[in-house]
Amino acid sequence: MELSFTGLPDIPMVKPGDNLVELIIDSLEHLGQDLESGDVLVIAQKIVSKAENRYLDLKTIEPSSLAITLAQKVQKDPRKVQAILDQSNEVVRASPGVLIVEQKSGFVQANGGIDQSNIEVKGVDPDDLCLLLPENSDVSAEKIRAEIMLRVGVDVAVIINDSLGRPWRMGTLGLAIGVSGFTALEDYVGGEDIFGRELQVTQVGAADEMAAGASLVMGQTTEKTPVVLVRGYQPRDPVDESLRGVSPLIRPKDLDLFR
Amino acid sequence: MELSFTGLPDIPMVKPGDNLVELIIDSLEHLGQDLESGDVLVIAQKIVSKAENRYLDLKTIEPSSLAITLAQKVQKDPRKVQAILDQSNEVVRASPGVLIVEQKSGFVQANGGIDQSNIEVKGVDPDDLCLLLPENSDVSAEKIRAEIMLRVGVDVAVIINDSLGRPWRMGTLGLAIGVSGFTALEDYVGGEDIFGRELQVTQVGAADEMAAGASLVMGQTTEKTPVVLVRGYQPRDPVDESLRGVSPLIRPKDLDLFR
Repeated sequence: MELSFTGLPDIPMVKPGDNLVELIIDSLEHLGQDLESGDVLVIAQKIVSKAENRYLDLKTIEPSSLAITLAQKVQKDPRKVQAILDQSNEVVRASPGVLIVEQKSGFVQANGGIDQSNIEVKGVDPDDLCLLLPENSDVSAEKIRAEIMLRVGVDVAVIINDSLGRPWRMGTLGLAIGVSGFTALEDYVGGEDIFGRELQVTQVGAADEMAAGASLVMGQTTEKTPVVLVRGYQPRDPVDESLRGVSPLIRPKDLDLFR
Repeated sequence: MELSFTGLPDIPMVKPGDNLVELIIDSLEHLGQDLESGDVLVIAQKIVSKAENRYLDLKTIEPSSLAITLAQKVQKDPRKVQAILDQSNEVVRASPGVLIVEQKSGFVQANGGIDQSNIEVKGVDPDDLCLLLPENSDVSAEKIRAEIMLRVGVDVAVIINDSLGRPWRMGTLGLAIGVSGFTALEDYVGGEDIFGRELQVTQVGAADEMAAGASLVMGQTTEKTPVVLVRGYQPRDPVDESLRGVSPLIRPKDLDLFR
């Protein structure tokens, strides 16, 4: 199997209301590429959030007393802490400089995925400007996929990725936060190894592996390569649309020994 | 940037003492490819361990009373628990079915990286046969890289990967456990975003992202594609050999909120 990860060129800075599919199709034209069935588009969360106008001006936030107390503990702006709490189901860890929560999507993430780099809105103080995750990244991925199908008649998979920290290891990793048309978790349960014995590794976070590889091409310092075309992936099984987007990658709390 | 991940064809089953570099060079010949400076070879831990004869027959293990007690808790073979303890600095979590340790390398990993699938040794009961991680995966990577340099005069990077589970998310991810000639952790500290402000994401686990992408090409059910050639990666900075292989990816215990 040969997999290629191609950064799409010339994606302009994304503004609220921009149609990402138009930008992607324009870029593919520059590249001289047509989409093909089986292609995977990995799209940076940041441009999805920007297109969906998920900006938040902290001036509009009134922190609760809980947020104020927590802000002292984590040494962050109480208004930002309130914004994080508003995006979360629960706090997982709070310590100086670190606020890790279960984001509304169910993923455990620092700051509930709220981001302050590579964003700018005229008239808003940069220190007050935040960008939230998409309301529902699976729905965002699904919409992008459906619009590509409408416009060019090709069924591609769409993965929205974000850079997440992790326990035990240093450095962020690009991981999937929204998925459409792709089996996020490949299940080998009941499979056999080359000697006919039960496999030790039974579930693989395939959408995360794809998101991580694409993240290498995206880089971090700019948003200049926010879309990566992945070609050549041969999934183990046909995509089962009932697999509910990214949610199979969320570890249920009762199976999680580390929260 | 375009990155290609190519699974090397026709790598035979690896036996103790096999020269992996020979197998890789033969495969590249079949593929009609020459190695180029800047190429990255991602190699599955399993074949490195096999070549290094890291097999262990549990019949040779006498479990301690600690291992016997722990084995009851985690519902595993006491001899295997002893083998895991022998490969570990400390136990991180133990619960029914799960034994997570800090492996001698410093990485936190289930079962200390000891594996029982896709291995076979004549005369050893499959239930007693284990495969340990390389003694030092950075050294293994370094040796492979040095031998490639000797044989074909090309400086490639080598990453040894393994499938690791993680807290919070389901499914394993291919991650780096040994690195040579590659900046495992890319450091953006002091970098600026496109608007000249400090970056939020400051350290990226680049070797892990590379290992994860390669893992997609390797698959899990067989070891038939244990080597992946990655071409086209443009590292942020020239490789600094003082960066000590994979160790920058190990989160120091005092910075780890989840153990």
